[in-house]
Amino acid sequence: MKTSARNLFHGTVKSVKKGEVNCEVVLSVGKETEVVAQVTPSSLERLGLDIGSEAYALIKASWVLLAEDIDGKFKTSARNQFCGKVVEMEQGAVNSDVTLELEGGNKISAIVTNESVVTLGLEKGGKACALVKASHVLLAVAD
Amino acid sequence: MKTSARNLFHGTVKSVKKGEVNCEVVLSVGKETEVVAQVTPSSLERLGLDIGSEAYALIKASWVLLAEDIDGKFKTSARNQFCGKVVEMEQGAVNSDVTLELEGGNKISAIVTNESVVTLGLEKGGKACALVKASHVLLAVAD
Amino acid sequence: MKTSARNLFHGTVKSVKKGEVNCEVVLSVGKETEVVAQVTPSSLERLGLDIGSEAYALIKASWVLLAEDIDGKFKTSARNQFCGKVVEMEQGAVNSDVTLELEGGNKISAIVTNESVVTLGLEKGGKACALVKASHVLLAVAD
Repeated sequence: MKTSARNLFHGTVKSVKKGEVNCEVVLSVGKETEVVAQVTPSSLERLGLDIGSEAYALIKASWVLLAEDIDGKFKTSARNQFCGKVVEMEQGAVNSDVTLELEGGNKISAIVTNESVVTLGLEKGGKACALVKASHVLLAVAD
Repeated sequence: MKTSARNLFHGTVKSVKKGEVNCEVVLSVGKETEVVAQVTPSSLERLGLDIGSEAYALIKASWVLLAEDIDGKFKTSARNQFCGKVVEMEQGAVNSDVTLELEGGNKISAIVTNESVVTLGLEKGGKACALVKASHVLLAVAD
Repeated sequence: MKTSARNLFHGTVKSVKKGEVNCEVVLSVGKETEVVAQVTPSSLERLGLDIGSEAYALIKASWVLLAEDIDGKFKTSARNQFCGKVVEMEQGAVNSDVTLELEGGNKISAIVTNESVVTLGLEKGGKACALVKASHVLLAVAD
């Protein structure tokens, strides 16, 4: 599946929690990583998602917030907290494209301002955390 | 109404589904197009929205995800899937501004990286789909 | 707490409204300003948030929509509407970084296209409103 989302995770549905207007879907993507998404009940039905279903999680790089290594220091409401090592950094005029490699081998890219790169002291090999709200994650399945 | 949102759709409320914390509003915008938005119950009340009400849907171009023409190939959880023809492409240093024209004549613009333009093989006249989560749509009404 | 989010508000929880899949948290940040966030029940529990708790609200600048001064002219579904005076504007090749100062002294920054700056007639000293959906706000607490 080709989209403009820099981050595409493939996995299987681990759990589904249904609400009236929103449902929460947890996707296992690789050994160590889970992605939590919020979708509407009608999307859940339309995609035919249930425990064990294969699905993709799509996350646009500009929806990812980077934080310093907050493990044990800060808790956030972001259901998705991906901590890892900075493996790539590409700098534009205003923004930088920063990629983290997570423990299980998955990668996640974020677009942040160059100012943030300085504030966070980001550099290759350093640790950082990517934060993504569950309501910002799109799910997709092959038809 | 002037805002920084590149995408402004004017229409009438077709349906409202109320939840405890979120409500789903479907807006008819032109013959062929519907926009689905999620708003809180208090926003619904504050805006006085009901079936038949006039309203605007605002979508920032950076919240729009572009995909190849996925009709019949992929299903996504995005409640808003706008497929159409690429009619404009403006390239910056890092990002491109891509505009699709939909069947009913509506247009939608997305900001994506130049890399995505290449990956998706986007070019004027080609087909593509714009995906927008209902929770990313803002509604507005004249006071 | 260091993150790539340009907007960090510190405050105390004023109210919590619980839903099945989403909860609404209102944070008082300074005399005149409140920030409304939507988080999941499990995040609420994990962060230990209750009325009176201290917390941070994080908002990425690219998630902020700017509008003209809409007071009394337009109502929007954005639970967070921060109107104030433009105090800073930095222009890049494609985007501008615009900062508003609110009545209570808080500041909020938005990334918008240069085209929007022109359309909105933004200039230092002028009035504008920043719109942020509650579902776009991240909450954090010190561990």
